[in-house]
Amino acid sequence: MRYTPVSKIGERPLISLISNIFRELPDGIILGAGPDDCAVIDIKESSYLVVTTDMLHRMTDFPWQMSPWQIGWMSAAVNLSDIAAMGARPLGVLAAIGLPIDTDVAFAEEIARGMRDCAREYDTAIIGGDIDTHDELTICGTALGTVPKEQLLTRKGAHVGDKVCVTGYAGAAGAALYALENDINAPDSVLKALLEPTPRINEAMKLASMGHVTSMMDTSDGIAMSLYDLSKSSEVGFRLQEKMLPLQPEVEELMSFNRENLYSMALYTGGDFELIFTVRPEGIEDVLKLGNISMIGEVVHQEKSISIQKSDGTVLQVERKGYEQLKIADNT
Amino acid sequence: MRYTPVSKIGERPLISLISNIFRELPDGIILGAGPDDCAVIDIKESSYLVVTTDMLHRMTDFPWQMSPWQIGWMSAAVNLSDIAAMGARPLGVLAAIGLPIDTDVAFAEEIARGMRDCAREYDTAIIGGDIDTHDELTICGTALGTVPKEQLLTRKGAHVGDKVCVTGYAGAAGAALYALENDINAPDSVLKALLEPTPRINEAMKLASMGHVTSMMDTSDGIAMSLYDLSKSSEVGFRLQEKMLPLQPEVEELMSFNRENLYSMALYTGGDFELIFTVRPEGIEDVLKLGNISMIGEVVHQEKSISIQKSDGTVLQVERKGYEQLKIADNT
Repeated sequence: MRYTPVSKIGERPLISLISNIFRELPDGIILGAGPDDCAVIDIKESSYLVVTTDMLHRMTDFPWQMSPWQIGWMSAAVNLSDIAAMGARPLGVLAAIGLPIDTDVAFAEEIARGMRDCAREYDTAIIGGDIDTHDELTICGTALGTVPKEQLLTRKGAHVGDKVCVTGYAGAAGAALYALENDINAPDSVLKALLEPTPRINEAMKLASMGHVTSMMDTSDGIAMSLYDLSKSSEVGFRLQEKMLPLQPEVEELMSFNRENLYSMALYTGGDFELIFTVRPEGIEDVLKLGNISMIGEVVHQEKSISIQKSDGTVLQVERKGYEQLKIADNT
Repeated sequence: MRYTPVSKIGERPLISLISNIFRELPDGIILGAGPDDCAVIDIKESSYLVVTTDMLHRMTDFPWQMSPWQIGWMSAAVNLSDIAAMGARPLGVLAAIGLPIDTDVAFAEEIARGMRDCAREYDTAIIGGDIDTHDELTICGTALGTVPKEQLLTRKGAHVGDKVCVTGYAGAAGAALYALENDINAPDSVLKALLEPTPRINEAMKLASMGHVTSMMDTSDGIAMSLYDLSKSSEVGFRLQEKMLPLQPEVEELMSFNRENLYSMALYTGGDFELIFTVRPEGIEDVLKLGNISMIGEVVHQEKSISIQKSDGTVLQVERKGYEQLKIADNT
């Protein structure tokens, strides 16, 4: 057989190949390895157990400006964000930590404190783990949660006519990374989105309990990639309104020299760990009342694809690009 | 504060430091990060959820002779072994896989098939995961299981007078590694212990349901280290009988030039993924009837420490050494 390096085929096609090997599931596993943020297990009469795992590395996931406490916070936060994406309440977090042998013990302890503080912020804890040595600092987190069965949210369920919403600001983490990489002085409020992301656990539980949300996921790979994922699972298209994208005022200021870039950033950069979700039209008013939520467009027929209307009325196709771990062309 | 690299303090002291940071647990977490193989969560009336995570690396955990299928098998097996250690039934396995970018896609698929086949062997499945790129092949597995509350087994519970038992052979994986490292021709039956370890799920569930077992863990770090861990949790000592250590006949043959080394191997090498457990005296007969189980000694008072009686009657102290990930002096 011909040699094909994984770098040639792209992250999502590789995930498809591997998920296919794992496709057979025993009874009681509602959703397995594949498109959603968590696996879903039917563990008792009234609620599902959801579980997710994410591996982070020094080189690709932790900007050099991150403190060890922030590295720990981030490692818990990305996993809790996946729990939030299903509408679930966190039950616990596990952490497998691979440390270079020259790591200062105090640095390792700060990582642990960051993880603990993030878990505690969301009324949960680090309940287990593994420590060993590794060439590169590597942290693999696992988070568990529970959700009442009727409140489980997945990427499947969006209907034509539903409204599309996001929590928080769009592209804030991308702007922070841009500032760090280009030595631009950015305020803490911008840097925080990248260095101390906020998993939307509380918002997610409220949204799930209201019953108006039809599909949900987090925006860790960017809004554009998330829309493509929702589109595939729900078999729908999307029409966004550019002017409705929630931009952080400090980011607008930071990027004022290039507003075109600003909107690209909002659509195509990842790392925000906000929620993107679809809402039945009759529920949108109640949902927006929760605060810190913006309506950015609506669900359309799948054949209309994914597009964005600019302020001048022109409509552009949203490209299938964003933050992918393998950082290579995706040819699906 | 003075710089202390993690390589200086040893794996178990580092785990103690980090576990201490994670010591506060919310309600419903019965056992958290710390001495046991799994965290234990009170998830419903009749049973506990147990969960464990382990990170494995190309350089330290996968001998070069391992096939990609065996790498996958091993990654699932080590986590299932931790589930077994608690007496639990597997519920599912998650796998976060970090692949070097030049990994052949076919190699990655074989890893996935190995994981799937191991999970399937124990009536479970790979239910979720994460894939990204990494300098060194890194696989972080997470396994979940459930156990009826009254059947949960931990490292705490051994009493003076209990019998000490192990499943399978002692030191088989160590002998295989010795053969590989010294270019000695070893039969497949020996190599398999190292390259395709068998998590003792079925034995563990039977043992847990019988009610005679008072404490249990797996022997992945070697019998000696496991006894020290059981000793610390249960506050007891142990007296082993050297002649009762279950040696694989092929290993005896392989090491026939050096029988002294053979017993060291059985005590101090890891990688076996057998179970070590203590049994109430009145239950020992029933337990041994299960087969593939050997009684190797008994529980004594803690002040008697951990010792082994040799065939000639002399008694030696069992040293606190074995396979530790950090492979450095442990000074607790």
